[in-house]
Amino acid sequence: MSTIRLILGLDPGLRHTGWGIVAQNGNRLSFVAAGRISPDSELPMAARLCLIAEELNDVLTAHHPEEAAIEETFMHKNASSALKLGQARGAAILTLAQTGLAVTEYAANRIKQSVTGYGHADKAQIQAMINMLLPGSGKLAADAADALAVAICHAHHAIPAALKVRA
Amino acid sequence: MSTIRLILGLDPGLRHTGWGIVAQNGNRLSFVAAGRISPDSELPMAARLCLIAEELNDVLTAHHPEEAAIEETFMHKNASSALKLGQARGAAILTLAQTGLAVTEYAANRIKQSVTGYGHADKAQIQAMINMLLPGSGKLAADAADALAVAICHAHHAIPAALKVRA
Repeated sequence: MSTIRLILGLDPGLRHTGWGIVAQNGNRLSFVAAGRISPDSELPMAARLCLIAEELNDVLTAHHPEEAAIEETFMHKNASSALKLGQARGAAILTLAQTGLAVTEYAANRIKQSVTGYGHADKAQIQAMINMLLPGSGKLAADAADALAVAICHAHHAIPAALKVRA
Repeated sequence: MSTIRLILGLDPGLRHTGWGIVAQNGNRLSFVAAGRISPDSELPMAARLCLIAEELNDVLTAHHPEEAAIEETFMHKNASSALKLGQARGAAILTLAQTGLAVTEYAANRIKQSVTGYGHADKAQIQAMINMLLPGSGKLAADAADALAVAICHAHHAIPAALKVRA
């Protein structure tokens, strides 16, 4: 008998919302699925947010993760892009929470440290480490790799909120 | 026979989300209802966004507005508060859009102009004008008054997306 928990990591954005699911079995992590949601930027805000919610709900229905994690707000220099990011984040967090999923936030440098061993890794280093830590994850969009990094961070830090027992 | 349309105005915020509903009958506007949603600031982000969505859904169920309007993103000096506002906005816009409501955005100065005749009115002037334009609206929280101002702006500017015919 083994105890597996499925963790959804999320990297929300209005242009691209990355998601990734990792299975944790004791100390072992394995890749389940990852992707990104990219609403047409020509659409009105409301339609873009609906699309993020809809595709995220499809991911939840397909994989049934038990826990979710997201990168903590990083400080933007630009208030206008912070507002756009906020809207995507709000829609994504609401969608997860409405299905009863607990959403844990982690600081960016803590996530990087979980994956690469230090807090200031760049995107390319994160992608390379994701491929090493999660064999089979293949070529990933940057947002999907970041989402998997959040899921790995959660696996390393969080006390399971719910354990799924599989024979 | 008269043609009435019900317009929901929204002033989203993480601490307070104001809402207000106005009935338009030809050139006449009247007050229907207004209020504000104030999630406990001690709650985690996900719970606060859920509460905004939940109470907003209660408003939609109680009043069945046909159209919705919201103030356009105003530029924040502070990226951190823009991100918080964005999350509340994202959750609110998503909630409206998921029920099929069209959400129109208006610039802040256009809203002020609709209500007070000029684009740089302060909050006290807006509240006083709301009470004059919408008899019966009574003493309003600033966020609720702002939400009614958005609804009035929409009534003045938008071509009805849907007309509700009442005997």
